Amino acid sequence: MFYLIGLGLGSEEDITVRGLNAVKSCSKIFLEAYTSVLGVNKEALEAYYGKTITLADREFVESGCDGMLDAAKEEDVALLVVGDALCATTHTDLFLRAREMNIRVEVIHNASIMNAVAVCGLQLYRFGQTVSLPLFEENWKPASFYDKIQQNYAADLHTLCLLDIKMKEPNIKILETRGKIVYDPPRFMSVKQAIEQLLYIEEEVKKAGVLSRTETRCVGVARLGQPDQRIVSGTLEELLEVDMGEPLHSLVLVASTHPLEDDMLKFYAAKKE
Amino acid sequence: MFYLIGLGLGSEEDITVRGLNAVKSCSKIFLEAYTSVLGVNKEALEAYYGKTITLADREFVESGCDGMLDAAKEEDVALLVVGDALCATTHTDLFLRAREMNIRVEVIHNASIMNAVAVCGLQLYRFGQTVSLPLFEENWKPASFYDKIQQNYAADLHTLCLLDIKMKEPNIKILETRGKIVYDPPRFMSVKQAIEQLLYIEEEVKKAGVLSRTETRCVGVARLGQPDQRIVSGTLEELLEVDMGEPLHSLVLVASTHPLEDDMLKFYAAKKE
Repeated sequence: MFYLIGLGLGSEEDITVRGLNAVKSCSKIFLEAYTSVLGVNKEALEAYYGKTITLADREFVESGCDGMLDAAKEEDVALLVVGDALCATTHTDLFLRAREMNIRVEVIHNASIMNAVAVCGLQLYRFGQTVSLPLFEENWKPASFYDKIQQNYAADLHTLCLLDIKMKEPNIKILETRGKIVYDPPRFMSVKQAIEQLLYIEEEVKKAGVLSRTETRCVGVARLGQPDQRIVSGTLEELLEVDMGEPLHSLVLVASTHPLEDDMLKFYAAKKE
Repeated sequence: MFYLIGLGLGSEEDITVRGLNAVKSCSKIFLEAYTSVLGVNKEALEAYYGKTITLADREFVESGCDGMLDAAKEEDVALLVVGDALCATTHTDLFLRAREMNIRVEVIHNASIMNAVAVCGLQLYRFGQTVSLPLFEENWKPASFYDKIQQNYAADLHTLCLLDIKMKEPNIKILETRGKIVYDPPRFMSVKQAIEQLLYIEEEVKKAGVLSRTETRCVGVARLGQPDQRIVSGTLEELLEVDMGEPLHSLVLVASTHPLEDDMLKFYAAKKE
């Protein structure tokens, strides 16, 4: 049996009871560790489950996880995923490959940013498509998200922006000069960086008037589902001044709002009236 | 303390460990029982928690839940919600009212249809706004969802359709003729009814060519997250012929697809090639 188990967003106790029972029945446990991060580390999970966990980084998952699926033919194997079990494309792929190998698959769902973002007070059915904002590099500043945000605003819908995570990226300079793979430390895009990038694309590249420094309303969300979660609403300019603290951060761009949504945004306002 | 706790989608074991610990610490427990239903009933939850649960029906919640919030000033009180804790507007309202009464609020998230629908193989970031399909009455066939579906298709995005639930509706005829409130049995819209209503609006009312009986692809989802969950993909016409079984049902209207999405849709196809 191959279990795909969502861990939720916060601590080791955000797994479901069914998920925990499944983990305890497994002889091999893998933790997907590059598309998101939990509020606790692998060691805390190992102590909580009383089991050893193997980190499944990008190389492991993208190279096919063959060992993992082979093992699942004979024994119970779990892949733990931060958030919900099927948020990333890779995991759908694993699901299909396991089924093609005649391995039984059980998916155990959990909260993810895609539904838990409702805690900011904006109604989920008023969100359009979700966009991913990549960390800009010196010579790489893609702007494909901008058109999607524009489409959402045209339909008067909020936009959830998922902010880039670089968990284990080879350092290109060292690779080029010394031919050696050395990994950079993890990087997480902050709400502040996200807003700077959005304004750069608006003001320097597209200039289509989709976003405005002083008029566009947004909500910054940090460490969603963790005890020190922080939610702050305001204009893009106001949120540039807010230190949201440790990762992970997300950003919501706000379309027109209902009165109850307004009340929640006021509750979270950076600048109290 | 006032806890808003998501129960997830399937059984009593789909609560998170943190949620279960919170429930066990509470002296009063309410179960929201009209915007969705779990795969198990109140009695199963009571047996699992070893606690008595009060049903919070629409009247209770919409009349303000004053007793519940008053109790939360002095003791630990939980409102259990099927799916995630903040999927419905009403619960955001409760959150704000509790905070205005200086009651501490803790939200414990869980899976909901809004993220778990990814199990059908369509990528969550390729969904546009979610629409709600109401059960048509003889003289009431609203079509506001149609424009939203059209907007989603225009942006080449999938549409999740949430299907109507009538949990405790007064029978209008009895009310009018005998002045007495008698509740109708619960009604749940099926995938088949949803498709019939969509095609009625397309073919008889709007005629804008957004949906096609033989060309529009869709995915029917029944009892998501429960052991007997069923997922079937096909054209609207093909899914009209499929009996998806017991409630709850949901329907996804499919925009253009990536190869991996296609593979999953083939896996779930009503009509195998």
